[in-house]
Amino acid sequence: MTTQDLVQQIKKKKSMLCVGLDVDLSKIPQHLLDHEDPIFEFNKAIIDATHNYCIAYKPNIAFYEAYGLSGWKALKKTIEYINECYPEQFTIADAKRGDIGNTSRMYAKAFFEDLNFDSVTVAPYMGKDSVEPFLTFKDKHTILLGLTSNQGSEDFQFLESNDLKLYESVLTTSLEWTNSQQLMYVIGATKASHLKKIRTIIPHHFLLIPGVGAQGGSLEEVCKYGLTENYGLIINSSRGIIYASQDIDFAEKVATAAKELQQQMQVYIK
Amino acid sequence: MTTQDLVQQIKKKKSMLCVGLDVDLSKIPQHLLDHEDPIFEFNKAIIDATHNYCIAYKPNIAFYEAYGLSGWKALKKTIEYINECYPEQFTIADAKRGDIGNTSRMYAKAFFEDLNFDSVTVAPYMGKDSVEPFLTFKDKHTILLGLTSNQGSEDFQFLESNDLKLYESVLTTSLEWTNSQQLMYVIGATKASHLKKIRTIIPHHFLLIPGVGAQGGSLEEVCKYGLTENYGLIINSSRGIIYASQDIDFAEKVATAAKELQQQMQVYIK
Repeated sequence: MTTQDLVQQIKKKKSMLCVGLDVDLSKIPQHLLDHEDPIFEFNKAIIDATHNYCIAYKPNIAFYEAYGLSGWKALKKTIEYINECYPEQFTIADAKRGDIGNTSRMYAKAFFEDLNFDSVTVAPYMGKDSVEPFLTFKDKHTILLGLTSNQGSEDFQFLESNDLKLYESVLTTSLEWTNSQQLMYVIGATKASHLKKIRTIIPHHFLLIPGVGAQGGSLEEVCKYGLTENYGLIINSSRGIIYASQDIDFAEKVATAAKELQQQMQVYIK
Repeated sequence: MTTQDLVQQIKKKKSMLCVGLDVDLSKIPQHLLDHEDPIFEFNKAIIDATHNYCIAYKPNIAFYEAYGLSGWKALKKTIEYINECYPEQFTIADAKRGDIGNTSRMYAKAFFEDLNFDSVTVAPYMGKDSVEPFLTFKDKHTILLGLTSNQGSEDFQFLESNDLKLYESVLTTSLEWTNSQQLMYVIGATKASHLKKIRTIIPHHFLLIPGVGAQGGSLEEVCKYGLTENYGLIINSSRGIIYASQDIDFAEKVATAAKELQQQMQVYIK
């Protein structure tokens, strides 16, 4: 998907919402466990209930790997379902991969070719040659970890060198990489106070913002400092939406939760 | 596996060799492609040919993910084969994972429980709460990226803050985490000149050393500065061993390549 298609979708739906598909079998409505593939049945219900209110879906790959082969099958069915039924949706493999060059290329093939996601999240620690292989795929996007939403982000991401914090060095340096226009960045909503400075380094790139909702980030702050002329924000909610109810009619509650977030967002979309 | 079992195995076999199982179907002997599961057939032949000369196997997960479900099936068969036939071998899932706490826990379950590896490689960028979930598993080891062997390691790992380079901060800080005695560290052989200083920070922890062979690292330098009273080194070779030949009798050439490296290593093992 091109960035322009993503921008059009945000404008049309008046939403920047991404629904995180982090399926934990101990938390889903228990009647779904009778199905042959409960993970996929749950995802399908969530997707059908939310697609009018969101512009992206983000399965966190850990939740599928943890169920072994059946988890991978469910992931494949899920991405195929989205691509077939709702091809306007932007898809994010939240995988946080990254390895030496020839190995990163294999990861890129896995997510961009075998699974046909629009984008994948990548960790920056190993530098340029661990990220550039992802950037060679046309109309695919690489979402680099910048400033993450968790407490551990303070261990290394704020270390300062040459007047730049580590995460600022990651943003600055990555702009020099080949095809850097295909980069997006993960910036946690719990760190929204840093967005003003971040936008001086990357004024135009899209940001994937986790941490609104369960983790406590503020939508207002994120929009105040993060919005660009092309919106430039994909705002993720996982647990707050997908576990809105465990009842038989859970899909209705899920739809309501997604709609509520979309309505909070639309005031920021001109 | 306990660290003590690993040390015993090194002593007995006079080897610190880890064989990297990075299977690329375009590089394996072409007659294997007639098999139903060529990846597993290749791995089985490599393992049978090398197990007397090595103490560990390290599949890089990217190479399996790139083949989708069939890749994951081959990975599962491979780890089951090693655990059943050669249970003395230390197994490493080279996955370079890392995510927020509840998600890292899912990755840990995937590699330690579903696949039953002894260890997994983890990226440090997201800090303490992204790594500690891996450290809660008994007799399982977490191998944290320290200083990697690729060129891109120079982008961020050498950034200096408070008189410590980033990778030195990673080593120092991680020692304070809960169950840090279960940590090992990735230190590239191409960066062996830094090993002397690294050993002042982590004098006893095991190091996983990639980059000997195809990437140009020196075994002599690695041993000179990296060896400890418990050996403390797992030295990986992938391409130099597994692609030693593409002929029908490739397994013999593979065994010879592994034996050569083992013999170079045994002079350092007292």
